[in-house]
Amino acid sequence: MTQKNPTIYVLNGPNLNLLGTREPEIYGSTTLADIEDAMAARAAELGLGIDFRQSNQEGDLVDWIQEAGREGAALIINAAAYTHTSVAIGDAVSAIDVPVYEVHLSNIFAREEFRHHSYISAAAKGVVCGFGAMGYNMAIEAIAGNLKTTD
Amino acid sequence: MTQKNPTIYVLNGPNLNLLGTREPEIYGSTTLADIEDAMAARAAELGLGIDFRQSNQEGDLVDWIQEAGREGAALIINAAAYTHTSVAIGDAVSAIDVPVYEVHLSNIFAREEFRHHSYISAAAKGVVCGFGAMGYNMAIEAIAGNLKTTD
Amino acid sequence: MTQKNPTIYVLNGPNLNLLGTREPEIYGSTTLADIEDAMAARAAELGLGIDFRQSNQEGDLVDWIQEAGREGAALIINAAAYTHTSVAIGDAVSAIDVPVYEVHLSNIFAREEFRHHSYISAAAKGVVCGFGAMGYNMAIEAIAGNLKTTD
Amino acid sequence: MTQKNPTIYVLNGPNLNLLGTREPEIYGSTTLADIEDAMAARAAELGLGIDFRQSNQEGDLVDWIQEAGREGAALIINAAAYTHTSVAIGDAVSAIDVPVYEVHLSNIFAREEFRHHSYISAAAKGVVCGFGAMGYNMAIEAIAGNLKTTD
Amino acid sequence: MTQKNPTIYVLNGPNLNLLGTREPEIYGSTTLADIEDAMAARAAELGLGIDFRQSNQEGDLVDWIQEAGREGAALIINAAAYTHTSVAIGDAVSAIDVPVYEVHLSNIFAREEFRHHSYISAAAKGVVCGFGAMGYNMAIEAIAGNLKTTD
Amino acid sequence: MTQKNPTIYVLNGPNLNLLGTREPEIYGSTTLADIEDAMAARAAELGLGIDFRQSNQEGDLVDWIQEAGREGAALIINAAAYTHTSVAIGDAVSAIDVPVYEVHLSNIFAREEFRHHSYISAAAKGVVCGFGAMGYNMAIEAIAGNLKTTD
Amino acid sequence: MTQKNPTIYVLNGPNLNLLGTREPEIYGSTTLADIEDAMAARAAELGLGIDFRQSNQEGDLVDWIQEAGREGAALIINAAAYTHTSVAIGDAVSAIDVPVYEVHLSNIFAREEFRHHSYISAAAKGVVCGFGAMGYNMAIEAIAGNLKTTD
Amino acid sequence: MTQKNPTIYVLNGPNLNLLGTREPEIYGSTTLADIEDAMAARAAELGLGIDFRQSNQEGDLVDWIQEAGREGAALIINAAAYTHTSVAIGDAVSAIDVPVYEVHLSNIFAREEFRHHSYISAAAKGVVCGFGAMGYNMAIEAIAGNLKTTD
Amino acid sequence: MTQKNPTIYVLNGPNLNLLGTREPEIYGSTTLADIEDAMAARAAELGLGIDFRQSNQEGDLVDWIQEAGREGAALIINAAAYTHTSVAIGDAVSAIDVPVYEVHLSNIFAREEFRHHSYISAAAKGVVCGFGAMGYNMAIEAIAGNLKTTD
Amino acid sequence: MTQKNPTIYVLNGPNLNLLGTREPEIYGSTTLADIEDAMAARAAELGLGIDFRQSNQEGDLVDWIQEAGREGAALIINAAAYTHTSVAIGDAVSAIDVPVYEVHLSNIFAREEFRHHSYISAAAKGVVCGFGAMGYNMAIEAIAGNLKTTD
Amino acid sequence: MTQKNPTIYVLNGPNLNLLGTREPEIYGSTTLADIEDAMAARAAELGLGIDFRQSNQEGDLVDWIQEAGREGAALIINAAAYTHTSVAIGDAVSAIDVPVYEVHLSNIFAREEFRHHSYISAAAKGVVCGFGAMGYNMAIEAIAGNLKTTD
Amino acid sequence: MTQKNPTIYVLNGPNLNLLGTREPEIYGSTTLADIEDAMAARAAELGLGIDFRQSNQEGDLVDWIQEAGREGAALIINAAAYTHTSVAIGDAVSAIDVPVYEVHLSNIFAREEFRHHSYISAAAKGVVCGFGAMGYNMAIEAIAGNLKTTD
Repeated sequence: MTQKNPTIYVLNGPNLNLLGTREPEIYGSTTLADIEDAMAARAAELGLGIDFRQSNQEGDLVDWIQEAGREGAALIINAAAYTHTSVAIGDAVSAIDVPVYEVHLSNIFAREEFRHHSYISAAAKGVVCGFGAMGYNMAIEAIAGNLKTTD
Repeated sequence: MTQKNPTIYVLNGPNLNLLGTREPEIYGSTTLADIEDAMAARAAELGLGIDFRQSNQEGDLVDWIQEAGREGAALIINAAAYTHTSVAIGDAVSAIDVPVYEVHLSNIFAREEFRHHSYISAAAKGVVCGFGAMGYNMAIEAIAGNLKTTD
Repeated sequence: MTQKNPTIYVLNGPNLNLLGTREPEIYGSTTLADIEDAMAARAAELGLGIDFRQSNQEGDLVDWIQEAGREGAALIINAAAYTHTSVAIGDAVSAIDVPVYEVHLSNIFAREEFRHHSYISAAAKGVVCGFGAMGYNMAIEAIAGNLKTTD
Repeated sequence: MTQKNPTIYVLNGPNLNLLGTREPEIYGSTTLADIEDAMAARAAELGLGIDFRQSNQEGDLVDWIQEAGREGAALIINAAAYTHTSVAIGDAVSAIDVPVYEVHLSNIFAREEFRHHSYISAAAKGVVCGFGAMGYNMAIEAIAGNLKTTD
Repeated sequence: MTQKNPTIYVLNGPNLNLLGTREPEIYGSTTLADIEDAMAARAAELGLGIDFRQSNQEGDLVDWIQEAGREGAALIINAAAYTHTSVAIGDAVSAIDVPVYEVHLSNIFAREEFRHHSYISAAAKGVVCGFGAMGYNMAIEAIAGNLKTTD
Repeated sequence: MTQKNPTIYVLNGPNLNLLGTREPEIYGSTTLADIEDAMAARAAELGLGIDFRQSNQEGDLVDWIQEAGREGAALIINAAAYTHTSVAIGDAVSAIDVPVYEVHLSNIFAREEFRHHSYISAAAKGVVCGFGAMGYNMAIEAIAGNLKTTD
Repeated sequence: MTQKNPTIYVLNGPNLNLLGTREPEIYGSTTLADIEDAMAARAAELGLGIDFRQSNQEGDLVDWIQEAGREGAALIINAAAYTHTSVAIGDAVSAIDVPVYEVHLSNIFAREEFRHHSYISAAAKGVVCGFGAMGYNMAIEAIAGNLKTTD
Repeated sequence: MTQKNPTIYVLNGPNLNLLGTREPEIYGSTTLADIEDAMAARAAELGLGIDFRQSNQEGDLVDWIQEAGREGAALIINAAAYTHTSVAIGDAVSAIDVPVYEVHLSNIFAREEFRHHSYISAAAKGVVCGFGAMGYNMAIEAIAGNLKTTD
Repeated sequence: MTQKNPTIYVLNGPNLNLLGTREPEIYGSTTLADIEDAMAARAAELGLGIDFRQSNQEGDLVDWIQEAGREGAALIINAAAYTHTSVAIGDAVSAIDVPVYEVHLSNIFAREEFRHHSYISAAAKGVVCGFGAMGYNMAIEAIAGNLKTTD
Repeated sequence: MTQKNPTIYVLNGPNLNLLGTREPEIYGSTTLADIEDAMAARAAELGLGIDFRQSNQEGDLVDWIQEAGREGAALIINAAAYTHTSVAIGDAVSAIDVPVYEVHLSNIFAREEFRHHSYISAAAKGVVCGFGAMGYNMAIEAIAGNLKTTD
Repeated sequence: MTQKNPTIYVLNGPNLNLLGTREPEIYGSTTLADIEDAMAARAAELGLGIDFRQSNQEGDLVDWIQEAGREGAALIINAAAYTHTSVAIGDAVSAIDVPVYEVHLSNIFAREEFRHHSYISAAAKGVVCGFGAMGYNMAIEAIAGNLKTTD
Repeated sequence: MTQKNPTIYVLNGPNLNLLGTREPEIYGSTTLADIEDAMAARAAELGLGIDFRQSNQEGDLVDWIQEAGREGAALIINAAAYTHTSVAIGDAVSAIDVPVYEVHLSNIFAREEFRHHSYISAAAKGVVCGFGAMGYNMAIEAIAGNLKTTD
């Protein structure tokens, strides 16, 4: 039996619960539930489980990142707006030992100046943005590759 | 029957629950409950209802702004300290379709430098500050005017 | 007989004379004269008079602000472009004792960065922007309320 | 009977719950519970009680600071990451009348640039950092000294 | 009969009235009157008239820019020092529909840092500096070319 | 007969006309007329005349500085608020050959940050501030000393 | 026959030719040739070809980006150091119509401040960094997905 | 026989080779070859020759600027993106003795902030932008005028 | 016999000699001598000696810090104004091996911006400010605790 | 007998001892001793004594400013280079009760940027610069006037 | 036989090819060839060879730095203008193992602000500027000393 | 007999007296006395004498720089920490006529940001850093070369 449960925590920040249900002409009609389903499917193929959550509360994300550090094998996080303002989330990410990948649906560098800085990136292994929902599964692939490597 | 319930959400941010109960020599003796009563009265005259709330949690405000976008006819928001730090609240305001008016009791431009920037203003229709409790009802008048116009 | 003539000075800065006569599809067809008429009507109901002026000259506005301090009961000012560059107007506003309200038709915080700072705001009692022509009358209501309070 | 209950609120911010349980080679093996015990012992000697809490939620800290203002004799706060980002916590600290001492376990001035600024310090009576867990009890001594002085 | 009178407004800002009469060893002996004569001659060849003015008053320039928008076919402006400080002139230039060309006698980019920014440039069709008096006639040629094009 | 009329231009900027008539508890009861009288008296003793003016118009000051350059022996200027914003006044001061002394009644360095920079200082021979009305006559003494020196 | 040849240009900037041959303990032993082989293999599976190049010359990259715009179906670019300094490369990327993905082997946000800004990102569809060589193939997957979508 | 060959070097920087062949709806259909033809024609009328070149390589432009200093009578340069980043090109322009005119097709001051600064302008005699292809021939006229003057 | 003499150097910077003798209504009536006496008493209880000095000379403090490094067991320093300007003192503190604690009587973070940065803090083990004279003895306690620990 | 000895301290900072002995073509041939003599003469006429000193040591100036606060009636200070770097001197000036006037021989605002800020000005009653040696006696006149006023 | 060929690469950046042939009254008449000859002579005495090159192409310098890392014993580089703009050259210098010395003929700190920063310095062992051509041979001495040391 | 005694002043700033006696594993075991000996030896060979001093007092260095200007033939200065903070030392260096060379043992550009600026460099003939103790003798060579040249 392995020492760590190979569950990937996938945490989503504020307003992402609106995805696909509002302004579909801009953001497309993919919902967060669609993303979760696609991730679960791919994770299963790779022998991994996912624990997929969303909250508008900064502190919930801090709690869950800590939980991911205790219970998870890796963390995929799209902290949305908190990416740019939360030292607390950045500290939580720095405090855990499991690999962390940062995902953004849109290309944050083509948006407002204040979205170009992330408190998470420096502590993440990798960052992907602008690949849409595909970015989440790209992170799963990377995690799967890393887990295999460290076998 | 109208498609949208003409309810105005009135959301108040951190520490506004202290209003009127502490340092009345500075902030006056008007409480948040007094403001709510005055708004309810004026709203009724204009054929509108209000849903008046306060929280010290950034995430609660995000949740309620989203709810205002689904359930309300307009949003009046005094995000207090979160005005200046919360990209998440700014994003939520940008994501909804109902008209938003930003209110501050004091003149934030006569205070510390860091209170001169708001993440909400750019997405609001209008901003009013330094009119005290009257600012809330000014926003109701504007909303009533706009709603009539779009009839 | 009261010691001060309850006349509200309403001063308008550069380019506001163009209002309603150019680009009506953007700025609407309300002219400065329309605003003056609406203010005069509401002021009369509140037992106040207005003295409504416009100039493209920074110095005229300084002169008139001083005059408002000597002759008026209150000042409503939309200094337009001079809002952002004129220390002289800011100094004049600081030098007078009557209450001052700052009005902008558009939401200046949704425009260029250099329009986000005002030399007037810190010395004003209140600031309202983005309420269109209604902002002027909102300031009258506030003044009327204050004048009554201090009786 | 005294008008105020001599209870010292001791509030701890995000990620401090991890203290002593992770990376003990860096942060040592002292847990937050150990700190609470040491504080309770010393407080008892000084005729004081403590109310010791931790949360990862910014809004909880705002709530508790307000409570400390109503129910407590003094406040000791280690807001961790929120120290550097929370205007709301700074506002709450400014809004209460009891003496506030700010504590940090590590020397925040030997860390990243963004940890050198605190929204709390300007409203605190004193700041201590880099004294480890001893900093908390130092704050208790100062409070005890002050309370005696004002007898 | 054409709908618009093909008159080119040529507006000159503060201190340009000193041109050629002081420090000729530096600025040359060409006066503003010389420039006006040369422009009138070339304009006549191109079937255009010019209306050439100078003022040290920021507000005069705002008035005249508005007049150029109502009465003129195009505007050539050398706002001198106001180039760098006047949002009001920039706003006036933005508010008019006729083509605007910005001219400076000297190369402003080889001078003090604060002369490198212009509130006019962003709203102008073109900018020319460092070509001396020739720059004015270059702007006329460009205007003549454009007017022909739009016939 | 001397080639230049030994008249000292003394130019005063916006809001200085209020001096001594408002807020005497702050600014004292000395009026601008009092200053003019004292200067005229001292100038007469030194064999000099003064031409003392005030305007709230930036352009008037530019005109008068140019006039001082043509007609005067020296210039004493208190440009008040325009000190900090007017490149046009700075350019005019640079363009004239007579000695220029900059005077401020208050110590501008003990006031707001934006009053610490002057567009005039770099082109002036000397700057004096915080000496109150005495500063004007100090400038006269310096001019008298210089004029004698260059005999 | 399709109008565009489905060839993916893969362009690599300065010093990437050193990859894998120096400091393997830091950068690993994967060479640029290894990356090219892996990309070619995956591209073949997806029915795509790659044209893989490296240069230390900024201008070569500009030339090749233009060529990619004329001859290619998409562009994957790792401009290395030029990412942060080259407006010319940014302009070239903006000037072409094919989709562009930006790749960095390392997490540039965990490195020096000057590596956090990219002149390419704003014009790219997506950015991936810190995924090592896997990032290149992630970009191919995204391109393949997009090409299919637009069939 | 004159000491210097009256050849005007006309140097064009990165991406200008795309002119007129891509996005004609934005940049028009004028190609770089069209500009060269028009310049050659006008130069011939003025008794001048032109040497017209384009490169995407920063170093080529440095080489050619040096060559213009040795072989040419004047230099007209549109360095495109290198305008804003190349100290090397700025140094080369400073190092040569022939007159230099800087040309940009578009109004760079109406574009991104980073295009507002030029390393060339301070060493140029004049700068023209936003006059389209006409700007090149304006520079020729200025050169012809200067050459005649210095005969 | 121990290898190091357990003497604590206590160094005080410029203007601290005025303590208690001027403006007692602000700074209290505690003198530097009072602080020295209190420290000596507590140090004796802990089995330590103190060497307490003050100088207005930056260089004296550098000399004494070096001496503390050679002769002392620890250093407590209140460098007053030199805290914010002296790289030399910061270098001296970095160069010595004994533990250093930084003390300020007032809360420097509630004062001017330029007092928020210290060249000493990054090299100190801990910083305490706003605890008044008590801060010095708090540092002694910390040192005593550390010395015991390392026995 | 008056409580305070009417002695004016006149303190001069680093490198002023070189005055008049080096580069007389730039700084003139007036030495610091000449200035002292002229001040002594004028002070005697006004019934005042002077105590005139120079040092290159920052700490000496701090010592002497404190002494001036204890023993003197007023302070005239030309801190030369320490003006721009010494918080310690600024603190000393703030700590004393006698009036302080800041003098500079040259116009510091016409020199390097870093000489435009003074740590002394905000605590001084007045500042005079660019009046050469005359500035010192101007300060004496101001002091004499003030002392008379407060009789 | 030694493992590394003791050849010193000496690389010179843009515009240095002009040295000594233009403006000799400013830069002197020493040419780059003269410097090469002097270096070759001194290197021979020290038992070293030199490989001396110049290019105006940023990419050539990157290529040659890499070559120096593979083939050379040390690198002396005067990157001229690229010093201040080229991250690519800085990266190349960081990527190689041989000691690097940075040389500038003039004192770059006495020139424009933008020449005070170098992307190379942080990775160099030493920097010398303002010693003219002598700086190159100073670097050779240092290298010779180091090479001997590591024997 | 020559007019100036060919003595080279070699001045060393704060904390350099610690050299070689502390942390030799970092700074090496060379002491300041060793450097003095090596300089004296090489100077003797070149027919020069040295006067080698160290002080932790900023004012001592100012005194000695002035003395070097009166008595010395040249100045070599390693002002250590005062390099970055002392305008007074910079002024003294600017005030003297003998050539000045600035030396730093370490590469200050590879250290903290605040060590990258020097108040001395702009007035020095040359700067050398990162060559260790050899830098001092490099400066002697340059001085010897210059002195010969001006014979």
